Amino acid sequence: GVTPEQVDRIVKQALRRYSEDRIGMVDYALESAGASVISTRCSETYETKTALLSLFGIPLWYHSQSPRVILQPDVYPGNCWAFQGSQGFAVIRLSSKVHPTAVTLEHIPRSLSPKGTIPSAPKDFTVFGLNEEGQQEGIHLGKFMYNQDEDPIQTFPLQVEDQSAAFQLVELRVLSNWGHPEYTCIYRFRVHGEPVS
Amino acid sequence: GVTPEQVDRIVKQALRRYSEDRIGMVDYALESAGASVISTRCSETYETKTALLSLFGIPLWYHSQSPRVILQPDVYPGNCWAFQGSQGFAVIRLSSKVHPTAVTLEHIPRSLSPKGTIPSAPKDFTVFGLNEEGQQEGIHLGKFMYNQDEDPIQTFPLQVEDQSAAFQLVELRVLSNWGHPEYTCIYRFRVHGEPVS
Amino acid sequence: GVTPEQVDRIVKQALRRYSEDRIGMVDYALESAGASVISTRCSETYETKTALLSLFGIPLWYHSQSPRVILQPDVYPGNCWAFQGSQGFAVIRLSSKVHPTAVTLEHIPRSLSPKGTIPSAPKDFTVFGLNEEGQQEGIHLGKFMYNQDEDPIQTFPLQVEDQSAAFQLVELRVLSNWGHPEYTCIYRFRVHGEPVS
Ligand SMILES: [K+]
Ligand SMILES: [K+]
Ligand SMILES: [K+]
Repeated sequence: GVTPEQVDRIVKQALRRYSEDRIGMVDYALESAGASVISTRCSETYETKTALLSLFGIPLWYHSQSPRVILQPDVYPGNCWAFQGSQGFAVIRLSSKVHPTAVTLEHIPRSLSPKGTIPSAPKDFTVFGLNEEGQQEGIHLGKFMYNQDEDPIQTFPLQVEDQSAAFQLVELRVLSNWGHPEYTCIYRFRVHGEPVS
Repeated sequence: GVTPEQVDRIVKQALRRYSEDRIGMVDYALESAGASVISTRCSETYETKTALLSLFGIPLWYHSQSPRVILQPDVYPGNCWAFQGSQGFAVIRLSSKVHPTAVTLEHIPRSLSPKGTIPSAPKDFTVFGLNEEGQQEGIHLGKFMYNQDEDPIQTFPLQVEDQSAAFQLVELRVLSNWGHPEYTCIYRFRVHGEPVS
Repeated sequence: GVTPEQVDRIVKQALRRYSEDRIGMVDYALESAGASVISTRCSETYETKTALLSLFGIPLWYHSQSPRVILQPDVYPGNCWAFQGSQGFAVIRLSSKVHPTAVTLEHIPRSLSPKGTIPSAPKDFTVFGLNEEGQQEGIHLGKFMYNQDEDPIQTFPLQVEDQSAAFQLVELRVLSNWGHPEYTCIYRFRVHGEPVS
């Protein structure tokens, strides 16, 4: 049997981890720490036509989220970058140059989505490291699948062949989604790694 | 006795629910998902005179929160819409048309309020479904009481007679507060339901 | 042994406290509740050169955080006021006049900082109560040390000699940091107390 003190310790530890941006890993793609989206190549931002403020039925302005939101921690429904179709690209300038070790992709949970489904969530995606911005084909760091049936926050260890490789530019390429015919939503993308000394 | 594994499971489940906007129910009144406050009828916003920025004692601008904040998830002290007196109205255009099933009202906890009391919290309130915006008297969906002594987040199942009724407009009418002579504060209002297929 | 019901109760209580701004104490220095930074005396804000938005490698604007952020609850990496060197001052106008009883200082956890160290965290600091803004030397309320090895949120009970003393102005003076040669970061500063009746 477990004592009340042991339960306290387990709970305290779980809440500490929860307060450490949920997963306790440094995010080099966090906007507030200095990262930015420098290009979305040919992706077309989907106009979600969210009226932020309307008066007596007349929407005052329409709003579509910028790709910047994928580097911001808020993940309430709608705090996402929506691009047309199921393929999208984002080149991110990290807050510092790192030896990349993993990436994390996050979507809203099914429970917060109408009908309990998340068809606009990304499915297959690849990650590249770039040495310079114009670079057409970067260094392949891995191909992964975001699983719509698992935890909303999913971390993927990278398959980096050259351990000495370091990058300040990382590209996310979404290749497919979970079935939405019109658009795909990215809520948050994080990049983890070892800082270059 | 409970095993450490069982404790882990209980803790993990509780944190998962906590991360699902606390209650794990879709909020069709969430601004980031597309909802908006389209009218507050004759309610007068209370000028709380919160100086957001002042330099050497001279406040640079005064700020009173817009009714929009009741559709936003931040609920730190002050993130509320304050209206004069104890009666206020807000007509909300939901992010989509739904068969409404419940609403949730939220205030700050007593522990975060000076003197440990929340007299400006709403008390009695009613909820209506509207078919069009100018409508003076909507469909009555229930009358409820927000309890100042219970959990800060309180969900109220609606009493909908006509199960086929669906609305994109919902009106919140606050009828009384917990004793504040000057104003009433609404921190967050959520609307739950089944999406119209 | 502990029963599942007891575990549930412990977990629920821990999450309730977590949701009460983590520590369940009223913060009279919270900006959204009406507090403001009215002066930073001679402290020089450190230009962190965080590009919030850049296009094709050209940063659109640079951004350095205002001292206001220390009164705001967001504490993701970068949501801090960075001042040059290891000594900085901030005079805060509280949301109301209080008999001060404690202050809380917060930094990001080591786990969210590259290299797992937080050299830019404050170390030694003092707190003063001021009766008027121009006052050069306020009432000394205590000298403390923020410990880089303990919990990211640390609360310090004040040593107030005159229990009847009440202040609406409080000054934070940071005297040293944990080793960063260039700047010191303040993520959040809270003031607790008893409201003046
Ligand atoms: K986001
Ligand atoms: K709010
Ligand atoms: K902050």
